[in-house]
Amino acid sequence: MPLVLTSRCILITRGAELDQIAMVVKVYGEARAVCPQRVIHCLVEKGVPFELVHVELDSMEQKRPEFMEKQPFGQVPYVVDGEFELFESRAIARYYASKYADYGPSLLGRTVEERAKVEQWMDVEAMNYNPVAFSIVWNAFILPARGLARKEEKAAAAARKLEAILEVYEKQLAKSRYLAGDEFTLADLTHIPATRYVVENCNMAHVMEGKQHLKAWWDNITARPGWKKVMEFVETGANKHQP
Amino acid sequence: MPLVLTSRCILITRGAELDQIAMVVKVYGEARAVCPQRVIHCLVEKGVPFELVHVELDSMEQKRPEFMEKQPFGQVPYVVDGEFELFESRAIARYYASKYADYGPSLLGRTVEERAKVEQWMDVEAMNYNPVAFSIVWNAFILPARGLARKEEKAAAAARKLEAILEVYEKQLAKSRYLAGDEFTLADLTHIPATRYVVENCNMAHVMEGKQHLKAWWDNITARPGWKKVMEFVETGANKHQP
Repeated sequence: MPLVLTSRCILITRGAELDQIAMVVKVYGEARAVCPQRVIHCLVEKGVPFELVHVELDSMEQKRPEFMEKQPFGQVPYVVDGEFELFESRAIARYYASKYADYGPSLLGRTVEERAKVEQWMDVEAMNYNPVAFSIVWNAFILPARGLARKEEKAAAAARKLEAILEVYEKQLAKSRYLAGDEFTLADLTHIPATRYVVENCNMAHVMEGKQHLKAWWDNITARPGWKKVMEFVETGANKHQP
Repeated sequence: MPLVLTSRCILITRGAELDQIAMVVKVYGEARAVCPQRVIHCLVEKGVPFELVHVELDSMEQKRPEFMEKQPFGQVPYVVDGEFELFESRAIARYYASKYADYGPSLLGRTVEERAKVEQWMDVEAMNYNPVAFSIVWNAFILPARGLARKEEKAAAAARKLEAILEVYEKQLAKSRYLAGDEFTLADLTHIPATRYVVENCNMAHVMEGKQHLKAWWDNITARPGWKKVMEFVETGANKHQP
């Protein structure tokens, strides 16, 4: 279900092709990177058309001055949406989930209390989960992929921390189908990209073993058409999404 | 300006003293810790009455089973507000800023776009600023305070990263009085507790030197009566706030 909502977007249907290209949300990043995947997934779930503008991380394009004019910390992604620009993947996801609250899944809950629970688990992801998952992916996958030595001890220490966090998740997912309640929200969505790297690229599917609720949650959220579309972007090199 | 807003709170004015105690927001934590300070500051800015329930970090009270029933990662703070419970300091601050959006300063902006900019800078704080500030405070202050060796190299490496981040802040604060625009928001508030530790306890006031906009912002936001009230909690050991 495509969104044609704002006054700017309405112009699309009247304007020339050049206008149309200028109006579509532009995501600056690289499809294989974790943080752009978070944003792409959110836009797909919400049915927002977008264009992915490739930023070459291997050649450190994100550190060039023209990029850092937009994202002053030299990180991907940032988005340009007409005259509005934004960076930080979780902030971008919140923005589109709020802006298009009435379209697609209710990614931030429906009440102030529901949103608070979504925010709680988003902050668990950002503050507790992400540093640990990142450490595993960095030390066990990215370093060897760059021809450097895998840092076994650091990866193992992070894996032990991840196990402890996942014990908490298993208990939570025994109480509710998704982290923040009975619906899929940004709390779940933000976990997917880094976890896929841990499970698939670091060969750590065993972290789900013996945790039936966690495993069911993981199978469920990664089977979503929205997430499959993100993987298509990675596999095909596509750079446009028109729902 | 005290808040007497919800149906539960209205009961307070009719009920017995026991009811009143049960209804006030309870913040479980310790006033000197960074994350509880974030929550206390937000509640004070919004005029929400609360009680601080002391959790002794030195004796690891936050790792006891009865605490971890409420906060499964063994961290402070969490809040109990009638039947609603929440943890993660930034999520709690967002919750009260949303719930009482019409009272006191507009801590999350007034439009979806304004909130997105607040979220962007909150995420910069959470993802970029906080790990670096925490590393400085841990290695240069907390370790020596516990009688352990100060880790000079780690503190110095973090200080260099902080300098780079503050260069970005100086540029931003040349454009707008506060991080997310012309009003004080959670984007500013969330930075205060850890930065005060860096500036005062790690003797690093020099990080503001030569950055006139950053210095003016810091002097401005720490002069707020709301922040002074947080410091009063630390200094006096007070455990109740009744605006």
